[in-house]
Amino acid sequence: MVSKIFEAGSVFNELSKCKHQRVVFCNDEDTGLKAIIAIHNTTLGPAFGGTRMWEYKTEGEALRDVLRLSRAMTYKAAISGLNLGGGKALILGNSRTDKTEALMRRLGRFIKNLSGSFITAEDLGTNNRDMEYIRMETEHVVGGHESSNSSNSSAITARGVFMGIKACLKELYGSDSLAGRSVAVQGIGHVGENLVHLLREENARVYVSDIDEERVRQVAKKTGADAISNNNILDLEFDVYSPCALGGIINSATIAKMRCAIIAGSANNQLADEDLHGQMLLEKGILYAPDYLINAGGMINSYSEISGYSKKRTLQLAENIYDATRVVLKKSKAESIPSNKAADMIAEKRISDIKKIKASY
Amino acid sequence: MVSKIFEAGSVFNELSKCKHQRVVFCNDEDTGLKAIIAIHNTTLGPAFGGTRMWEYKTEGEALRDVLRLSRAMTYKAAISGLNLGGGKALILGNSRTDKTEALMRRLGRFIKNLSGSFITAEDLGTNNRDMEYIRMETEHVVGGHESSNSSNSSAITARGVFMGIKACLKELYGSDSLAGRSVAVQGIGHVGENLVHLLREENARVYVSDIDEERVRQVAKKTGADAISNNNILDLEFDVYSPCALGGIINSATIAKMRCAIIAGSANNQLADEDLHGQMLLEKGILYAPDYLINAGGMINSYSEISGYSKKRTLQLAENIYDATRVVLKKSKAESIPSNKAADMIAEKRISDIKKIKASY
Repeated sequence: MVSKIFEAGSVFNELSKCKHQRVVFCNDEDTGLKAIIAIHNTTLGPAFGGTRMWEYKTEGEALRDVLRLSRAMTYKAAISGLNLGGGKALILGNSRTDKTEALMRRLGRFIKNLSGSFITAEDLGTNNRDMEYIRMETEHVVGGHESSNSSNSSAITARGVFMGIKACLKELYGSDSLAGRSVAVQGIGHVGENLVHLLREENARVYVSDIDEERVRQVAKKTGADAISNNNILDLEFDVYSPCALGGIINSATIAKMRCAIIAGSANNQLADEDLHGQMLLEKGILYAPDYLINAGGMINSYSEISGYSKKRTLQLAENIYDATRVVLKKSKAESIPSNKAADMIAEKRISDIKKIKASY
Repeated sequence: MVSKIFEAGSVFNELSKCKHQRVVFCNDEDTGLKAIIAIHNTTLGPAFGGTRMWEYKTEGEALRDVLRLSRAMTYKAAISGLNLGGGKALILGNSRTDKTEALMRRLGRFIKNLSGSFITAEDLGTNNRDMEYIRMETEHVVGGHESSNSSNSSAITARGVFMGIKACLKELYGSDSLAGRSVAVQGIGHVGENLVHLLREENARVYVSDIDEERVRQVAKKTGADAISNNNILDLEFDVYSPCALGGIINSATIAKMRCAIIAGSANNQLADEDLHGQMLLEKGILYAPDYLINAGGMINSYSEISGYSKKRTLQLAENIYDATRVVLKKSKAESIPSNKAADMIAEKRISDIKKIKASY
């Protein structure tokens, strides 16, 4: 009975699919901790990735999720020019009812025993206090002390998205000026609101929507943006559509309705199906700034914390997203391939090039 | 389809059964390395265990084997008074056709990234040269340089078994003198031959058997032991039966035939079924020296290498097996429980006691 479970799919089969380097199953009876740490690739540097706490229906679902997320981190670091690999940690459980100091610190001990090959940070279901607990056991964590602040992370992320939008404008119109350009920002959390401020400072016409309509009114009033309804955001015509909320927002149904020239936002996993919908955007002539490239500001902020960089250097790294986006869009155009595909290829090439460099003494 | 595989048995279910702390799946496309490192318990110290290279029919079989073997190392270290935890590494593959320098060194890198929480050594399918390769990448390995020699390991193991035999004699006859006692040594590899020498030095009457009959004749001649056939070794009457070859040699069929007073040998996993056959020996009144206790000399030798101990101190640790065996046999007698069960309980108590000690500053 039990002997069957590993035979069909197997952990190694899952690892081999996308060349994952390592997965660690952590189990502690005393604290009840069950966690999976996945390390996708460490060619560029130590694997970096958040610790997510989530209830999964099955262990297989959890394993595949942590593998997918850790791989995404590899690509994000690579395309952003950071010297980090990709990793992710998952705690299996309910972050509201199952989380304790001992549980988080036990995870910290497991991370400590990975020799710095994995560095973690906040993620869904964990917060700065959890990072404090992890920090009590290991130095291989970002956050959890006074110097770290997620508000800075949001500002840096917004700055990166802003630079991505400008790179798209430059590609399409020959000028990256926002003056008079129309931008619809969907979702005005910390990142979205910061982005609206940046756009308004350069005199863009900004339209904002959110499921929280009271917040929409406040931000619109504060920034001089126009409030619009979430329901008809896709029916309107904009130069730039900037999804800053949910993933999967770019799918066959929404693409059919879209009347924007550019998509560039901070949301994760915007394409419901990477291959299919990347290709559809290309065919419809909508310029798409790959999400994992232009929303890399959070990772850049963490990278700066790890590397001891200044605020100025952090901002510089975020502004590099402009050039990186331009390179991606040029490749996409030159080779008639979806921009997300072009980004993947550039990320993979960087890893493979640096792998060779590292072989020398 | 694939989603089913993790659901029924699951890696975490396997870990929870015997409270394993951690299992690491290592995957490297370049070298083809697929390895599993299991860490059972690290309360007493870093997990120690050999690197085995073996072809398994299924991944589940490999996982369960590495979990079983790592747990056995925890108990062996605990009962022997060593400050080591239990671990094991498995390379999935054929040690004759699949082994390369790069493969072994890649494993070394994975071990390096466990922060010294796992220390490895030779095992089935690996040799001293493989440890040399691992040592090129990490210091957390025993062997692989000149100072290490497995002949010393065999001598220490034989010394431990010898002390175990003497402890049994003391328990049964009130004297641990071997003079005139009859001992049948089954299997005369390095350990068995060393043991025969020790027994003969104290004037025991020694009977030797092995599947290699030429070797039996040589050793008998050299030591003054009597050669006997492997086939009828159980039909003869001895004070001590010392199995030093295959595991599983103590089973319902062999117990029925046995005419010895004591079983004390170096073979691993002598009891085909720990619970069943331990109980049968107790009921038949045969004194059994738990294998993992009296054959701990190899681990003691490695422990000395890790700790930088002298040859004298190593010998002392091996001779401590005498007292440890006496304690086990006394507990077995006092509580009317099989000696292997008594050993397990003492090992578990040591871990649980030291766990509390470690909590203090």
